Amino acid sequence: MWLRTSCELNFVIQQPTPFVFMLRPRSGAQQWVAREEYAITPHFQAEEYTDIYGNLCQRLIAEPGNLTVRTSADIMTSAKLDESPGAPFTLIQHLPEQVLMYLLPSRYCESDRFHEMTMPAVEGQLAGYDQVAAIVNWVRNNISYSPSQENWPISATEVNQNGQGVCRDLAHVAIAMCRSISIPARLVVGYLHQLQPMDLHAWFEAYVGGRWYSFDPTQAQLKGGYVAVGFGRDAADVAIYNQFGPETFAHSQKITVKLLNNNDH
Amino acid sequence: MWLRTSCELNFVIQQPTPFVFMLRPRSGAQQWVAREEYAITPHFQAEEYTDIYGNLCQRLIAEPGNLTVRTSADIMTSAKLDESPGAPFTLIQHLPEQVLMYLLPSRYCESDRFHEMTMPAVEGQLAGYDQVAAIVNWVRNNISYSPSQENWPISATEVNQNGQGVCRDLAHVAIAMCRSISIPARLVVGYLHQLQPMDLHAWFEAYVGGRWYSFDPTQAQLKGGYVAVGFGRDAADVAIYNQFGPETFAHSQKITVKLLNNNDH
Amino acid sequence: MWLRTSCELNFVIQQPTPFVFMLRPRSGAQQWVAREEYAITPHFQAEEYTDIYGNLCQRLIAEPGNLTVRTSADIMTSAKLDESPGAPFTLIQHLPEQVLMYLLPSRYCESDRFHEMTMPAVEGQLAGYDQVAAIVNWVRNNISYSPSQENWPISATEVNQNGQGVCRDLAHVAIAMCRSISIPARLVVGYLHQLQPMDLHAWFEAYVGGRWYSFDPTQAQLKGGYVAVGFGRDAADVAIYNQFGPETFAHSQKITVKLLNNNDH
Amino acid sequence: MWLRTSCELNFVIQQPTPFVFMLRPRSGAQQWVAREEYAITPHFQAEEYTDIYGNLCQRLIAEPGNLTVRTSADIMTSAKLDESPGAPFTLIQHLPEQVLMYLLPSRYCESDRFHEMTMPAVEGQLAGYDQVAAIVNWVRNNISYSPSQENWPISATEVNQNGQGVCRDLAHVAIAMCRSISIPARLVVGYLHQLQPMDLHAWFEAYVGGRWYSFDPTQAQLKGGYVAVGFGRDAADVAIYNQFGPETFAHSQKITVKLLNNNDH
Repeated sequence: MWLRTSCELNFVIQQPTPFVFMLRPRSGAQQWVAREEYAITPHFQAEEYTDIYGNLCQRLIAEPGNLTVRTSADIMTSAKLDESPGAPFTLIQHLPEQVLMYLLPSRYCESDRFHEMTMPAVEGQLAGYDQVAAIVNWVRNNISYSPSQENWPISATEVNQNGQGVCRDLAHVAIAMCRSISIPARLVVGYLHQLQPMDLHAWFEAYVGGRWYSFDPTQAQLKGGYVAVGFGRDAADVAIYNQFGPETFAHSQKITVKLLNNNDH
Repeated sequence: MWLRTSCELNFVIQQPTPFVFMLRPRSGAQQWVAREEYAITPHFQAEEYTDIYGNLCQRLIAEPGNLTVRTSADIMTSAKLDESPGAPFTLIQHLPEQVLMYLLPSRYCESDRFHEMTMPAVEGQLAGYDQVAAIVNWVRNNISYSPSQENWPISATEVNQNGQGVCRDLAHVAIAMCRSISIPARLVVGYLHQLQPMDLHAWFEAYVGGRWYSFDPTQAQLKGGYVAVGFGRDAADVAIYNQFGPETFAHSQKITVKLLNNNDH
Repeated sequence: MWLRTSCELNFVIQQPTPFVFMLRPRSGAQQWVAREEYAITPHFQAEEYTDIYGNLCQRLIAEPGNLTVRTSADIMTSAKLDESPGAPFTLIQHLPEQVLMYLLPSRYCESDRFHEMTMPAVEGQLAGYDQVAAIVNWVRNNISYSPSQENWPISATEVNQNGQGVCRDLAHVAIAMCRSISIPARLVVGYLHQLQPMDLHAWFEAYVGGRWYSFDPTQAQLKGGYVAVGFGRDAADVAIYNQFGPETFAHSQKITVKLLNNNDH
Repeated sequence: MWLRTSCELNFVIQQPTPFVFMLRPRSGAQQWVAREEYAITPHFQAEEYTDIYGNLCQRLIAEPGNLTVRTSADIMTSAKLDESPGAPFTLIQHLPEQVLMYLLPSRYCESDRFHEMTMPAVEGQLAGYDQVAAIVNWVRNNISYSPSQENWPISATEVNQNGQGVCRDLAHVAIAMCRSISIPARLVVGYLHQLQPMDLHAWFEAYVGGRWYSFDPTQAQLKGGYVAVGFGRDAADVAIYNQFGPETFAHSQKITVKLLNNNDH
């Protein structure tokens, strides 16, 4: 299916402020970027680099005044994400080198504290895909999805104590649980067609059966219409923007995802 | 200045053929990609990766039939490339690690054979930028620019024997000469506004005074309006497409570069 | 000064266990590895790779029985670490790409929670080196160094609540404080000559004045005799070994650091 | 089998001279470095980095006077290299990204000129391992091995014209032939037990059946006892030392490879 995504962020900048944006989706095994726009108004000199996760990041210094960042893309993505019940646990010795880091605990996924909690949740499951599916069910049943006003990210142990969270939080708990049983897992940030209410979205991927599979604890069923923008160990690595110095938040943020006819793109 | 570039390639594919395309310009220190389109018709599953030079490459298997690849981009680039006469030679011990490889001979730039020829060409010049400028002059005076019918790349020693070549060939000779006196140099492939006749273009960069500077032996004067698409040691690394198996050439190739008004992009 | 370091780890393995070891010091700007030994007994097929931080890691699957890992190295290192009071804050826009990730919060350094605490600690200091020095002093005065029986790493916020910790814990607090004011900081694990009691050691580096400088909150004065073995965002990235599956700890661990005469190595 | 290798290089340096050495073997899938020594006399500040091929390289500036570099290592390596007749050609679409560059022509392996010559040499062979084996036979029958006095590397087309060459030259021809039929191939430089006369050695690896296999056109039969020190596209990338500025050759070079008893290492 073809989707047209857009994201607009508006800031009021008080003093020269360094930003790193991560708003450029990349073509990959699961999506093709056929058209893309990226406007920064006013235009500042920006430099693009690739981070250690393969994300394209844009660095710039915003000068005082209004700053608007507007991106839009036409993307072909799967109408139905791959599922593979029964796909086996990938032995540590068979993991590619670059996947190993997704086994380690990270800022918002303290997997070193989740082993005990995870064991009963995956009891009786075949090692691999089915364990991840059981973890997703556990999260659905134990952490309620509740869009929050707060912008302050909290970690998986805090989410677990609260018993509720936003999409990112549910993904963090599931990631921490996966890693606690030696299944590599990573956070994905991007767009989801027909998300209610429309916003940026976060889900996760787990490495089983020799490849990454997508999972989404906030959705009752795994559909398609996902567009990935950034990958990382957790939200610390995959912020759509990082800003340094005195805090500046986007005072408005507008996200749209539109289904295209085959002739529109 | 804002430029709108486009490149269309048409192939007739006889059998399933693996391609690697390198047609996606990246935002960087010297250019900003504000809009981009990339259409492959018919659409095949393509995977994008970053090569060792930082280029975005797209892999796909083309099925028999017509294949059209059409890219277009709106790009802000400098109206006047940086020049820096007198910028000093960067000592080897101060070169960043990732620049060291651009000192070595490569397929089409046999720098190990150019030292003797280069020494008189740079005689009396200050080590660094001025040596590169002298090399560019030497190439302009000794290798005549002559657009060729042939698609077969030849190496700097062959170009030198022929005494003539296309833009890529002149750049290769200059690169080989730079490296022969320990100045890192690399090939750039991309677009040039008002190039006559319009086509893809090749020029080179040399690392002096602690950064990369652009040089173009085919132009009497260094103007602006350059859009870089790929970087590498020489044309072997920076083909806009590599195709494997029985040879398939683009039977037509159309390139345009248009100046945009500030309101058009 | 020349040092001979050694580390011996002994395990009893109950079932085939995947390990990643990080025990191989690398030659770098600040140390030269002139001799090195690395014995795994019994010998298992091990594969070495370089992680995203540049550390050399060795992967293997240990079979049931005794496992001994014994490394030793002769290393030339500085007798006095570089200090640079007054070295200025490096502007975010001048940080090399690969340094940016050391600004982000990580598993054991929740820098997103430390800004308020850090501001008074660095009040009146020149931005840069002197702020880091003030942070180190703050940690020395507020977190008492207390070698612990526990092997379980805790995070900077937990250390701060406890008011005490091991060398790693003090470094984590200092790292979190540095990052909270946009100074990149990373954990270093290795050896220190004349450490009392002798053990592996952890300290940290901060990026100011355009380069990394070493700091050690556990030592009253910055001496020399440091040998770095691993670098990373925090202890999650720089474990001397990671082991997967049912937990297996080294039942004995023996570390030595000996000063060599100039003729011994 | 356990081998003790050593390499000693002696230079007389006339003026401050930048060097990059590549003399440090790494542990990998096929060898384990259990002990290693690396002495530079007099000792200069050296910095180590990892190049794009994964080789550990040491940079230093040698001051005028005598320079001796002495390395030694105890290494466990296979007594018999893997062979796999019938292993299939790996489809381009299944090659890992980092292997793709080994399909391209390079300084000393002008694979773009070898397709015609290679086709008859591999006629009737199963695509993959058997083609590589046929190429090795072709090289053995058509290029005579003749240790040369010259230190000046020549390219595969030149070797082919001469009909003779050193180990590196034979490997270059075989590599060029492999790449000309879309089989990735790379040069390996290192040690070989019982090589006559003892010296550093060069052989090559080809990627078929989903992994790298070793081949050696200078040896009638594939034995074991190989120790790899460096990998690259060809000799331009894998020099045991690169030196910049006025040429300085090692006036003496001494290589030994000794078989160890199981108790010696």
